Amino acid sequence: MSGKIDARLAELGITLPPAFAPAANYLGWQIDGNLLYIAGQGPITTDGGLITGKVGSELTVEEGYHAARQTALELVAHTKVALDGDLDRVKQWVKLFAMVNCGPDFIQQPQVINGASDVLVEIFGEAGRHARSAVGMNSLPMQISVEIEAVVEIS
Amino acid sequence: MSGKIDARLAELGITLPPAFAPAANYLGWQIDGNLLYIAGQGPITTDGGLITGKVGSELTVEEGYHAARQTALELVAHTKVALDGDLDRVKQWVKLFAMVNCGPDFIQQPQVINGASDVLVEIFGEAGRHARSAVGMNSLPMQISVEIEAVVEIS
Amino acid sequence: MSGKIDARLAELGITLPPAFAPAANYLGWQIDGNLLYIAGQGPITTDGGLITGKVGSELTVEEGYHAARQTALELVAHTKVALDGDLDRVKQWVKLFAMVNCGPDFIQQPQVINGASDVLVEIFGEAGRHARSAVGMNSLPMQISVEIEAVVEIS
Repeated sequence: MSGKIDARLAELGITLPPAFAPAANYLGWQIDGNLLYIAGQGPITTDGGLITGKVGSELTVEEGYHAARQTALELVAHTKVALDGDLDRVKQWVKLFAMVNCGPDFIQQPQVINGASDVLVEIFGEAGRHARSAVGMNSLPMQISVEIEAVVEIS
Repeated sequence: MSGKIDARLAELGITLPPAFAPAANYLGWQIDGNLLYIAGQGPITTDGGLITGKVGSELTVEEGYHAARQTALELVAHTKVALDGDLDRVKQWVKLFAMVNCGPDFIQQPQVINGASDVLVEIFGEAGRHARSAVGMNSLPMQISVEIEAVVEIS
Repeated sequence: MSGKIDARLAELGITLPPAFAPAANYLGWQIDGNLLYIAGQGPITTDGGLITGKVGSELTVEEGYHAARQTALELVAHTKVALDGDLDRVKQWVKLFAMVNCGPDFIQQPQVINGASDVLVEIFGEAGRHARSAVGMNSLPMQISVEIEAVVEIS
């Protein structure tokens, strides 16, 4: 059985990346009441690869935007597993804390993280519009280019 | 119609900075039930300027304290818009995640972020007292000196 | 009167570090409904000392793991005070935002933060399993090696 959001993903030609198992002793998400807390995710490609490198030096802003988009899709992939396959239970993407791996002089984090925000709005419409912080980190696990954690309201 | 908090702001001689529109494709806040999540805000001056530069090298701790104060006022400005102008609906400032733009050897983030905590308590009293993290970032959007996101309990 | 978690701590031979008072004008925690938000805590040793230095250069990964463990115990110490001494009121550790003080090339944040996750599961069992982000910071207050903030579901 396929829902509205699954149909929307098909319409957009988007294949979700595999939901990457936690790299250590923690859970990929926790649910408290109507809130889904998704653990920090990284940029996984459709074939399960990892996008690494610092944005602004090793990756361009455009490549960073793409990494942020893949990271958002990885958040969606985890959401789908957390909601037993039913993405229509997403009521609202509430907040992202979005981190860009970069050097001390890089200041275009918002442009990079738009890659995540744009695709969430493409897929979920108004329910995809969220508050966020987009900030620069001097290092991230496995040198991933972007890491994002999220709070999602669910039904 | 003016409320108690508006009166308190006047008493303190505080003019809120303009609520800066999101710099990219996201919302300035999201409300989930009785919780207001405010997107990461930066230090906006009363006339709409931006305070930039790394604290500890380009800005002194005192200047960083002032930047943190302005950032808190920017959070208040967003809260006012989110609550249709009625700041009396704030029940409790719950948590700040407070980021200081600085170099790797700077360790006075708490002293800087007191600029935010102090003014929230001045304005809101007990309802302004919050849990927080005050940490060092190697870079922030547009090289802003401070960025803070907040969770606020509202009625 | 001692509860199940207190008994478990005794069984594990764990002495909680002292609940470090906030270093500045903020609270160590805030409770909103059934959620306890704990302010960012650092690695406090059993005798009240502070573990400092950057992981990967000044501290090994193993020493970082130990610092993360102590930081989790500091979170537990604060939780105990917040819950009037009754750790059995913890229903679920929901989320950690876990920060490692390190240089730009350090990428083993997950291995370090396992020190926190492992001990929470040792103490609380399933209720200790949480979502998390483990990221690298270029600087933290007082040069502490690890800082973690947490959201905990309580009864």
